[in-house]
Formats: sequence, C-alpha cells, structure tokens
Amino acid sequence: MDEVEVVTVADPTLDAPAFVEGLPGVGHVGKLAAEHLVEEFDGELVRRVHSEHFPPQVTVDDESVASLAAAEIYAVHAGGADLLVLVGDFQAGDAVGQYRVAEAFLDVAASFDASEILTLGGAPTGEMVEEYTVIGAVTDVKHQERFAAAGVEFRPSEPTGGIVGTSGLLLGLGARRGLPAACLMGETSGYLVDPRSAQAVLEVLQHVLDFEVDFGSLEDRAEELEEMIREFQEQQGGGVEAAPSDEDLRYIG
Amino acid sequence: MDEVEVVTVADPTLDAPAFVEGLPGVGHVGKLAAEHLVEEFDGELVRRVHSEHFPPQVTVDDESVASLAAAEIYAVHAGGADLLVLVGDFQAGDAVGQYRVAEAFLDVAASFDASEILTLGGAPTGEMVEEYTVIGAVTDVKHQERFAAAGVEFRPSEPTGGIVGTSGLLLGLGARRGLPAACLMGETSGYLVDPRSAQAVLEVLQHVLDFEVDFGSLEDRAEELEEMIREFQEQQGGGVEAAPSDEDLRYIG
Amino acid sequence: MDEVEVVTVADPTLDAPAFVEGLPGVGHVGKLAAEHLVEEFDGELVRRVHSEHFPPQVTVDDESVASLAAAEIYAVHAGGADLLVLVGDFQAGDAVGQYRVAEAFLDVAASFDASEILTLGGAPTGEMVEEYTVIGAVTDVKHQERFAAAGVEFRPSEPTGGIVGTSGLLLGLGARRGLPAACLMGETSGYLVDPRSAQAVLEVLQHVLDFEVDFGSLEDRAEELEEMIREFQEQQGGGVEAAPSDEDLRYIG
Amino acid sequence: MDEVEVVTVADPTLDAPAFVEGLPGVGHVGKLAAEHLVEEFDGELVRRVHSEHFPPQVTVDDESVASLAAAEIYAVHAGGADLLVLVGDFQAGDAVGQYRVAEAFLDVAASFDASEILTLGGAPTGEMVEEYTVIGAVTDVKHQERFAAAGVEFRPSEPTGGIVGTSGLLLGLGARRGLPAACLMGETSGYLVDPRSAQAVLEVLQHVLDFEVDFGSLEDRAEELEEMIREFQEQQGGGVEAAPSDEDLRYIG
Repeated sequence: MDEVEVVTVADPTLDAPAFVEGLPGVGHVGKLAAEHLVEEFDGELVRRVHSEHFPPQVTVDDESVASLAAAEIYAVHAGGADLLVLVGDFQAGDAVGQYRVAEAFLDVAASFDASEILTLGGAPTGEMVEEYTVIGAVTDVKHQERFAAAGVEFRPSEPTGGIVGTSGLLLGLGARRGLPAACLMGETSGYLVDPRSAQAVLEVLQHVLDFEVDFGSLEDRAEELEEMIREFQEQQGGGVEAAPSDEDLRYIG
Repeated sequence: MDEVEVVTVADPTLDAPAFVEGLPGVGHVGKLAAEHLVEEFDGELVRRVHSEHFPPQVTVDDESVASLAAAEIYAVHAGGADLLVLVGDFQAGDAVGQYRVAEAFLDVAASFDASEILTLGGAPTGEMVEEYTVIGAVTDVKHQERFAAAGVEFRPSEPTGGIVGTSGLLLGLGARRGLPAACLMGETSGYLVDPRSAQAVLEVLQHVLDFEVDFGSLEDRAEELEEMIREFQEQQGGGVEAAPSDEDLRYIG
Repeated sequence: MDEVEVVTVADPTLDAPAFVEGLPGVGHVGKLAAEHLVEEFDGELVRRVHSEHFPPQVTVDDESVASLAAAEIYAVHAGGADLLVLVGDFQAGDAVGQYRVAEAFLDVAASFDASEILTLGGAPTGEMVEEYTVIGAVTDVKHQERFAAAGVEFRPSEPTGGIVGTSGLLLGLGARRGLPAACLMGETSGYLVDPRSAQAVLEVLQHVLDFEVDFGSLEDRAEELEEMIREFQEQQGGGVEAAPSDEDLRYIG
Repeated sequence: MDEVEVVTVADPTLDAPAFVEGLPGVGHVGKLAAEHLVEEFDGELVRRVHSEHFPPQVTVDDESVASLAAAEIYAVHAGGADLLVLVGDFQAGDAVGQYRVAEAFLDVAASFDASEILTLGGAPTGEMVEEYTVIGAVTDVKHQERFAAAGVEFRPSEPTGGIVGTSGLLLGLGARRGLPAACLMGETSGYLVDPRSAQAVLEVLQHVLDFEVDFGSLEDRAEELEEMIREFQEQQGGGVEAAPSDEDLRYIG
C-alpha cells in the first residue's frame, strides 16, 4: 500500500461542490453534522482513503465484515448545492501523516473542482451550553461577511490554541492552493457527544450553501442522550432539578 | 538492513496452504494456538522476517545465543492440510511499520499461493470465561457459513473497537489483494495467558481445515496455570472455594 | 507540501546579518527577546518556514484568520547592524524534524550571507532570580572574549544537560558549516514568562552587535506580570511581604 | 546532514581490532568500562558519528564549547591488542534510528577489518551485588568456551527480556554480516552507576583479548561513590552497619 492511497469508487460530475469535512473531534460535532448530510441526502461514496498513518486496524460492521481503516468521501446533492463530504472514524496518528493525508483530501477536492473548503468541528466551552453559538475562522478576512450573515461569530484569536488536526490543516494547506476555506465550530461543553451543536453548525451550512435538511434524527439522538443524562442524575440521587456537575457529564455519550 | 527484510530459510512446495497468524496479543491466545501447531506438527521454518520497525533488540535462547528480533513463518503439514504459520514475539511498534510488515507477510503468503488468511487472537470479556466461545470477523459475508458451521459466532459490530495490529491488517490488506481472510477470536478474560481459549480456537481450525491435533501439552499448561491461581488464592487466605476477583487475576500468567 | 518548505516573502539586501533565533523555550526568554527586536525595529518578513514536523494545526489571529503553523524570519535593521530574526510559536515535534528544520534555517542564513548565528534562550535556576546573569556557550573558544566583554558568563559544562532543540542544533549544525555560533541564555526561574531575563539577553546583544533598543514595552510587560504575582500572593493571604514559594509561581505567565 | 553521518577524524592502520561498544545503559557499566579503556590507553579519535535519530541537542564541555550530539569511535592500542572503542552519551531515540545507527557502527568496524564485536553492559539484579559475576550472550555457541575460560557465565535464556539497544543490535546485525559477536554484562543492582561492575567486565576483556589495564581510577570512583552512600546512610540515621534499602540507593550515582 502507498503511504496514502485514494481509491476511486465512483466518479460523478459535480457542480463546483463545497468540500465539507467532519472527522472525529471535540464533541463529535463535525462528525455528527457531516454524517447527517450523507444520510439525509443519501450520499454516494466516491473515494475511500487509506493511509499507513491511520491506526493499523480494521473496523467490523454489523454483518461482522472487517474493513481496513479508511476515511470516506461522499458526493451529496443537497437541494441545489453539490457537496463533497469527508467522514470517517480516524485521523492520522502523527504530524507528518496529518499533513500528507490532508494534502490527499485536497487533491480529491481539486479533482472535483471544489469551490471551497468548509471544515466542521466543536469549540469546547468547559461548561454546559445553553445557546449553541457557532464560531468561525477563515483563510481570508473578506469571506467573513457571508458566514457572519448566517449567524457565525468571529472572535479575535479564538480558539486560542489554534485549530488542530484535519479541520485546521485543510484551511492552512487549502489556502496555499488558493482555495477559500473556513472552519465552523459549534460551541459544546466538550464532555459529551453533542447533536444539538451539530445541528447549530448545519443550520449555518444551510444558510451559507442554500439547502434545507431535516433534523429529525439528530433531534431524536439529542433527546436520547438527554434522557440518559436525566437517568444518570436520578441514579446519583440528584433528581431532575439538580444540575449535573461537569464531572458527572464527562465521558457520557 | 532493509526496512523489512524477508530471509528465505527453506522453500518447500505446499498445496494451497492457509496462512495462519498467531503473534502476541490479548491473552496470548493466537500465539499459543499458532505455536501449538508448529510444535505438534513439527513445522519447518521457511522464512524469517526482520524489520527496523520491530523493537531494536536481540532475544537470547536457552544456549545463550542471541538472535535479532524476528517473526518466523513455518510450513506445517497438518494431516491433509498444508499451513503456513506465522509466529513471533513482536509486532511493529508504530503504525507505518505495522502496515509495511503486514504487507511483507502477505507477500510471503502470495509466494506460496496461499488460499486464505486466518488470523488468531483473543477477545477480552473482562471477566472469567466459563464457556470458550470463538467469535469471528470475515472480509466477505459469504465466508461466514463455513466458520459458523464450526461453531464460530458472528456478532454485529464486534469487537467494538475493531481488530488492532497484525490480526486486523492481514484481513484489511489481504482483502485488497483478493485473498479471503478471517479472524478467529477466542473469548478470554484478558487478564491471563489463556491456553483453554487457544484450544477453543484450534478446535475451530481443526473443523474448518479438516485436521486433528493433540491438545495434551496445552491442557498441561492450562492445568499448571490453574494450579498457580489456586495457590495464589490460598496465599490470599481465600481457600479454594473463593472465586478470585478480577483484580487478583490481573497480570498472572 | 515538502517536508520543510521555505516560502520567500521578500528578498532585501542585508549587510552580513547576524542570524538571531528566538523560538519558544524556558521562560520564553528567547522568544520575548527576538520578538522585541522585530517589533521595535519594525522588521520585514522575508521567509516563512512550514514543515510536516511542526504540529498539524493553524493559528488564528485577531481577525479570525487562520494561518498554517510556521516559523518566520524577519529582516531587522537595528541601528548600524543588520539582523535576520527567527521567531515563531513552534518547534518540530520529533528529533528527525528538529534536525531538518534547523538545516533549513541555516540555508536561509546562508542565502543572506549571515556572518554568525546567535541563539537566545533561558537557563532555568529553579528559584527566583535577583540578578539577571546571561550565560553563554560557543562553537569555538576564541569567540568567548567578545561575549565576555558584554558581561556573558562562561561556566564549565553548563547547562549540564546540554542545549536542547533549535537553539542547540543551530550551534552544532552551524559549526559544521563553518559559521561562528553562540547561545546566550538568560537566567530565569523556569516557572514564569520572564521579560526581565529577555531584557538582560538583549542588553548583551546590544553590546555585541552595537545597537540600541528601547525596553519600554518589555518593562511594561514585566511590571504587569509582577502585579499579577502580587495579586496572586494577596489572594493567598500572604501579603506583599511574603515571598512566593516556587510552587505558587509555577505556571503563571 | 545525512540521516546518519560518519565523520572521519583519523585513519590509522589497526591489526584486526576487536570492536568494543560501551554506550549508556544499566548502571553505566558498559560506558564506564569503554571510557576507561580510552582514557588509560590514550585512545585516538578516529570517527565521529552524528544522526538525526540522536537527541536534537548539543553538549557543552568544560570550556563552554558546544558540540553536536555524537557517538565517538577511538582506536586503542591495549598492549598487543588493537581495539576500536565506541563511546558516547546517546543512543538513537526510535527503533528505526537504532537499526540505522547500529549498521553505521558496523560499517566502521568493517572498514577497519574488525575481527569481532564485543558489547559491554550491565545486567540488573534488583539488589546489592556482593560478587561481580559477568554473564554473556554470543551469536554462535562455539564462541562460548573462550569467554567461559575468562569466567563469564552463560545462563539459559538470560537476560529474559533480551538485550535491548545498541548492545543487542550489534550482535544481531553483526551476526548477519558474519562477524562473531558477544555481549558481556556485569551484574549490577541497577540503581547505581557501578564502577566495580565495569571493572569485572574489563577483567574478562583483559583475559579474552590479552592485555592489562590499571584500575586505579575506577577504584577511586567506586570508593567515592561508596563514601557518598555511607554519608547518605548516616544522614538517614542508619549508621554504617545498616544495610541501605534498595529504595535508598535508587538514583544515586
């Protein structure tokens, strides 16, 4: 196998698609949002990306069939907008691998004449989130207005530690190729898988790319999760009124 | 030395051998099972595989002779079935190395026209195992029936974390080469070296590949181990009746 | 992207510039000193250096614009002395990367016909520093006199653990290219960002390279920091008189 | 710089020298022994070996001169025996680097037509050592007699974890080149720098290679260390009679 290997599964013609990334990260916000798009719009798998920098393992599906660790790129027709959506269970495990895999993703974007890069993620707040603000970063200040009009907040020098991993590199390396790129981060506690934050990110995407998606399944998932938290609180003797402490919520999801 | 170096020790003609892997892993189930085959059928060493990705060390044998860290592949005539059996004390220490060493193993399998890949391992249950079920994963759903007939259970999306290391990669990379591949995992507590789980895996292998092997030495080893556990319990003042806690059993073996 | 990639932003003519390095390290002494030079003398960005060995991330600036992790080299006219000043937020994360990035920095130095290498850093004392001594190491004993005349102390075999990272490698690799090189280390507790130690290092540099720089902003920063420490002490009930323990000061800055 | 770079400092003619390795390891036994040979016989530096796999740093000598991390190989005339002695402060930090640096050392050995490889180290016992036995491992059982005659003990499958690092790889990789190789390990507590164990190893070497070396400076160092331990015991209120516990001795040296 090559260091990074891109397998062509299908090669449909797309109209200047936005390349949308949603790999695992804080609160799985980006992953939930991107997978929701693939499911709701019945995306077509176009590329499978393997890499020696991914964990050396196979995943096992619900039919007990094992598949080599991969990231997948789907073609998605979201109303009038064409998208390429990157999903998967892994990021590269080392810095060099992160750079090389990100370049391979951008090669795929280029091969479909992608118009822009939109990376999705979560911004950890460290406390329960009441209102799901989406914060943004761009590669050129002139692109901010379009996102701001969709409700995205641009806060100076946030996130303070920068944007780490594929969501960050696609911006940095995309800009070097002349591709406009933005990262949209839904605020989230950081302790829980957060479908509500994913929905907030998707609402921005709807506005920016002009499509509509049904949120039923994300809402169901959010409610299931909230039910789990309530049960957990009751077990702890707290009752529904007691606010869960951050510590209690850690690692649930 | 090359990054991965395959040394030819012998080159017998084999009849469409199954390539059986048993490197160290959970409960050393795969390693015990594979080594048992090599010992009982008096296997012939055919390849020695070195790699810069193996730990930088030598092993010292019972004559105080030092040998460079290696994996070894034996030709085994098990009744009517020919096997290639991969054993060793090491796996590659980094992701890139895992991929490259696994490809080298598959090159050896191909050079002998191997008919299929069977990787052996343990599935940790976290508690003492009463009945030694073997669970399976395959690269194509159509191969399940043959293993199910031998008592293998296929459980949706298990193991949940996927199959990590050589046992997993030989499936994922083998499938890419068109080689049918399956992983057979004996349930085991995960706290002990487990010869009984290795025997359960070998019983499946006997059925699938149609050979018979004597289990005397594995049973002896299991009894020695169980005696050690009993002694440990008595030292702890528990008496034979007291069930050992999982904590007590951790790291024995 | 190449493993190390040097982007030319500008290419001014410089007169035998000293190449001054100030990447993050102990007490951020080198970084504070080098950034102070760039700011006070209104440095011109001449090279941006990216590397797959830098952390896989973007930084986000005060306009929410994301930029790929980079080190930057500025041309600085400091009175009569021309300087090339290396600043940034990152060092390479692995040994091989450290060597390759350092060689790339030296290539830039060579392309400007740099006359010498001066790396700036902090020498941790483990206790609060009253008098800010600067200690030095050189690549040739004959260069010591010039620095000693500027107040630098040369202590046998100090720092005992050697000089780690870019500040060290630029000496070791620079010497191999025949470039005179020295490391100037301001004593600092090691627990705090230390602008006063940075000033001590810059005072040596002024003397050695014959320029003058205003220290107002560094002094302001030192006073802010000292105010923070005083407030912290009062919160701890210690009063202004109580000396902060080393433990209290750890991680402030 | 190349990944591994061998700098020729001198090129004397040597008569079938034994290549003796003493890099840092358990109790610094090998390092002390090898450095003692270089000092007592006034060794001539013949090669300096740098590598990107060594720590990215410089060492600073007693004149405050910084030198790039290196291993050094000295030509030593020990009575009638010619030796090449490898010393240094570093081993490669990763597995791939360990293999590549070891191959480079063997290339130097080959360029001098070395007759054999002798690696020196310590074998940790976990308790204070009364009698300094030297245990051995070889690459061919036929070489044992010569070392056994010098008092070396060969114990089945010891050390149990194999021999890790350069001392091990020079055996494993040396054997692949047809070079006879042995590892001589002085028993040592594992908690202390141990000049007495180094002396025991050198006594074996004297016998095997037929030379005589003065042990005065090693004995002085051992006595200094023992004095330090006595003082430490008295501070602990134990008096000279009290045996130091293993815990007390840890990290002294």
